[in-house]
Amino acid sequence: VARIYGDPPPALNRRAVFVFCADHGVAQQGVSAYPAAVTGQMCRVLATGRAGINTIARVMGARVIAIDIGVDADASFASSACAQSGYTGHCFYERRVRRGTRDLSVEPALLAGEVEAAIQVGHEEAVRHIAELDIVGIGELGIGNTTAAAALTAALLGVDVIRVVGRGTGIDGAGLERKRQVIRRALGRVPGHAPPLDVLAEVGGLEIAGLVGVILATAGAQKAVVLDGFVATAAALVAVTLQPAVRGYLIASHRSPEPGHRVQLRALGLRPLFDLRMRLGEGTGAALAFPTIDAAGSLLREMATFADAGIAAADAT
Amino acid sequence: VARIYGDPPPALNRRAVFVFCADHGVAQQGVSAYPAAVTGQMCRVLATGRAGINTIARVMGARVIAIDIGVDADASFASSACAQSGYTGHCFYERRVRRGTRDLSVEPALLAGEVEAAIQVGHEEAVRHIAELDIVGIGELGIGNTTAAAALTAALLGVDVIRVVGRGTGIDGAGLERKRQVIRRALGRVPGHAPPLDVLAEVGGLEIAGLVGVILATAGAQKAVVLDGFVATAAALVAVTLQPAVRGYLIASHRSPEPGHRVQLRALGLRPLFDLRMRLGEGTGAALAFPTIDAAGSLLREMATFADAGIAAADAT
Repeated sequence: VARIYGDPPPALNRRAVFVFCADHGVAQQGVSAYPAAVTGQMCRVLATGRAGINTIARVMGARVIAIDIGVDADASFASSACAQSGYTGHCFYERRVRRGTRDLSVEPALLAGEVEAAIQVGHEEAVRHIAELDIVGIGELGIGNTTAAAALTAALLGVDVIRVVGRGTGIDGAGLERKRQVIRRALGRVPGHAPPLDVLAEVGGLEIAGLVGVILATAGAQKAVVLDGFVATAAALVAVTLQPAVRGYLIASHRSPEPGHRVQLRALGLRPLFDLRMRLGEGTGAALAFPTIDAAGSLLREMATFADAGIAAADAT
Repeated sequence: VARIYGDPPPALNRRAVFVFCADHGVAQQGVSAYPAAVTGQMCRVLATGRAGINTIARVMGARVIAIDIGVDADASFASSACAQSGYTGHCFYERRVRRGTRDLSVEPALLAGEVEAAIQVGHEEAVRHIAELDIVGIGELGIGNTTAAAALTAALLGVDVIRVVGRGTGIDGAGLERKRQVIRRALGRVPGHAPPLDVLAEVGGLEIAGLVGVILATAGAQKAVVLDGFVATAAALVAVTLQPAVRGYLIASHRSPEPGHRVQLRALGLRPLFDLRMRLGEGTGAALAFPTIDAAGSLLREMATFADAGIAAADAT
């Protein structure tokens, strides 16, 4: 905290979680325990402020800024006005780049231009809010997105699929094997050491690209980005590969039970603050971490040192 | 949380940490990296609201209720009025039972009547505040108190000294060996399966006894007691041995690096929420846990279920 904000750091009271929402063509391959329609249904819940992240953010004194960057639904979830009250409350913006990605198991998920557009949306939304925020959490919502995140992680880190594929929303054993096969097939199209934006186009997702934009903009504003779980940390891998200096602005909140999250965190050199076996996503882990991060900085700002209090160790008296 | 408060549980906004402060005669045996005078010096810091717990409690929206139950100092740290503002702020009460314990390495630390009086002080202070609190954290301050806590833990659980003695405030290797010898000598006076109040008299501390009273009173009021580290959890072992039903009201906040904390938590069947390698005491870990505990309950109260949102799993559609 001191490295990012200076010593002593300011209070980090103005908190928000960006939740990027999008669909994935690969969901049609049966890689999730839930049908793709659940993304839109959960967006409706987010828009009414009754999702898990809304609840946790209220307790943590954080605002929820949700963005539909590519949900495959006829309905719009945008709120005409943001239901804000001080630094809690929620907004839902519609910034669709396209309705879901293509099925990454058979073709590139996104065109290069779509990747750029999605990163731009994330960058713009972060820049639009960052002046009135002290700290930013990032989360996501999208059926099928642990498949994209696993493929991205395997490709960017050059690790085997088996180490980064987990049960996501809770798929069964047969589904897990299907998920691995789908990812192996997709990775066949990705050469080793491919540039990160190429990998994002081949096997990524719109919400992941949007989060890359949020990370770049927030780090650019010299404020901390609090990562949520496996999907958000996949975005961090892309951002750090693009701009290594971003690494210094990342804080890992919790460790997800997804096996690939441990691999990502190790690669980024981050130690998560807690492990509560949470696997909800939506930025819930990031929101939980805000008070702890703020408290760390507050110790440098407010706590009396032993020198202040005139206290010396036994062997010095 | 639901088991303690009902489902759905109420918001847990009215939070306080009780910090009991006392000295230990055994400190003269060189079992701490700091001289006994530091207890009083740190009480002065607590009374001015500049200790670690004051800082963290402010961020977590919690009040600090500090009680001098046996500091060996000429000065009084009591505040004439409490510096309160809503549910943050701090109080310091003087309720000395005696000025420090006797040296447990050579004689019983406390008389039976002193143990009873200290438990009574804790009980009274908790009862006095509990109606205006939703949740209570417990912490302590006292040079030498990990020695007392280790001796208590070894005696109550019947485990070897080597498993429960750690470096406390950071004593060196020779000091650690001295600490073990001191505890072994003291435990020679404690028969196996001695009643918990007898163990508390032989090798306990005034702040530990006070915390036993807080735990009993808070559990009696059917509210959660959030444990801090090794010393606070020693008090929990005593309370649960006295009244097994108390167990259901305990929440472990963090895991301390003190090796004996792991042994205590296992005996109590508690899983700590986090492990940040904190070893400050004062209830700092307990305070950090308040928002997470409150958030857990808020999910039951506010979050839409899949049934609410009309969402079904893939294999059910």
